[in-house]
Amino acid sequence: MKPDFEPREPTALPQGWRRLKLILEWDGTNFAGWQVQAKGERTVQGVLEKALEPLGVSARPMAAGRTDTGVHALGMVAHVDVGHQIPADVMRRALNARLPEDVRVLSCVDASELFHSRFSCAWRSYSYRILNARTQSALERHRALWVPQRLEVAPMRHAARHLEGEHDFAAFASQEERQTVRTVFSCEVRSIPVRRSPDEQLIEIQVIGESFLRHMVRGIVGTLLEVGLGKLESGQVAQVLASKDRAQAGKNVASHGLYFLEAGFEPWARE
Amino acid sequence: MKPDFEPREPTALPQGWRRLKLILEWDGTNFAGWQVQAKGERTVQGVLEKALEPLGVSARPMAAGRTDTGVHALGMVAHVDVGHQIPADVMRRALNARLPEDVRVLSCVDASELFHSRFSCAWRSYSYRILNARTQSALERHRALWVPQRLEVAPMRHAARHLEGEHDFAAFASQEERQTVRTVFSCEVRSIPVRRSPDEQLIEIQVIGESFLRHMVRGIVGTLLEVGLGKLESGQVAQVLASKDRAQAGKNVASHGLYFLEAGFEPWARE
Repeated sequence: MKPDFEPREPTALPQGWRRLKLILEWDGTNFAGWQVQAKGERTVQGVLEKALEPLGVSARPMAAGRTDTGVHALGMVAHVDVGHQIPADVMRRALNARLPEDVRVLSCVDASELFHSRFSCAWRSYSYRILNARTQSALERHRALWVPQRLEVAPMRHAARHLEGEHDFAAFASQEERQTVRTVFSCEVRSIPVRRSPDEQLIEIQVIGESFLRHMVRGIVGTLLEVGLGKLESGQVAQVLASKDRAQAGKNVASHGLYFLEAGFEPWARE
Repeated sequence: MKPDFEPREPTALPQGWRRLKLILEWDGTNFAGWQVQAKGERTVQGVLEKALEPLGVSARPMAAGRTDTGVHALGMVAHVDVGHQIPADVMRRALNARLPEDVRVLSCVDASELFHSRFSCAWRSYSYRILNARTQSALERHRALWVPQRLEVAPMRHAARHLEGEHDFAAFASQEERQTVRTVFSCEVRSIPVRRSPDEQLIEIQVIGESFLRHMVRGIVGTLLEVGLGKLESGQVAQVLASKDRAQAGKNVASHGLYFLEAGFEPWARE
């Protein structure tokens, strides 16, 4: 039996227990996302639990953000409560020795009891990569969405501005959610030249927000894609938002272009 | 029976045949290099031949540079002689539809009979990527060599200068070769910050040369690595070269950090 701490309010840890803050990188290609699934699919939380097990008693690790099947992470923040005294940096090395090579623990440090990867998280950032080129890439095929039709970045950038700020993102919600108001601090679109070809580009869309609805980033990117293709005018994105109607927004783009980048925490929760 | 044209001197193609120039990208992870092997391993030349077969009669494709097991290509140049009249761009699309997704034909154009991917090639460029970070990367594990010990880039850059120009590269030859004098036009080392950490870097070593000995780039990188680790002084690289002794140079680094970038051609062979 594992204790499963998931406090809304910080609660004291049991005597002799401590909290570790982890920063994780993973290649999402062969994972059914972060969260342990009832059907027993391979998940990051699952392989992490398995790697933690022989090191002593621990609770179930928690992560700052949702990541579905195929989504990658460059700096996911997680925490785990452990009932032993193995030093944090020894834990980092022991976990890396035990984890499969498609997950790495970049950092493992002791954190205060006030730190909680989910409830003390103040912002999360995601990046979405689009290869806008005539031919798919062999090397980037699991790392970016391939779009062969020419995308115009200027209107995408203009449209992205409309999404910044506090809005009701119901039009970007993939499932019923009680509360669909979210704050997006920034949504930036940039174009990077590739293959020495003036017609080809790698487009990176970076979104920073307080928190996100399920599939919200992928719906935002799908909508910006329609703008880049000229199917939707950049100003219409404001109307899509106002409609609160999922059918007005673009389709969710594929998960293999999405990366969880970073998470920032409330001042009172920082180590 | 396939005709196998490999002329040292440009020879006329048979009546009704034409030459196509291909630019290829591939992910070397699951290939035993370019060249078809006697033992039937999966090679890029092999899968390309198989994709060409149903499109009509063709000779064996040839490539500009050697690439061993695990080496990637971003812009390998190849050519293939075909005995049919399918337009080049239709060929490109037909090949991409038939090839496995870890090889892509980025470009396919008609070339003159004087063009030969190997014998009219004037220069080749390779890049080698080193992730110099405390922890291995989940996403880059098949794309860069991981070196956890701190590497000093300045001496590596200084050492690289000694390799530029016409030299006898016998100290970097992995097998007996009749002629070991080669011309390296440039050897550049650059450091790119990663993971927002001041201690971590991605090191890219780019080498441009007329042609290379087998494993020469990997031996050069192995030697620069010794310099970066402080095991060899940058000036000693000149002595390693002068020794013509393979034992003096650094070990060949792993192939998964190596990329064939580009090839340039003699003016008389250009389309």
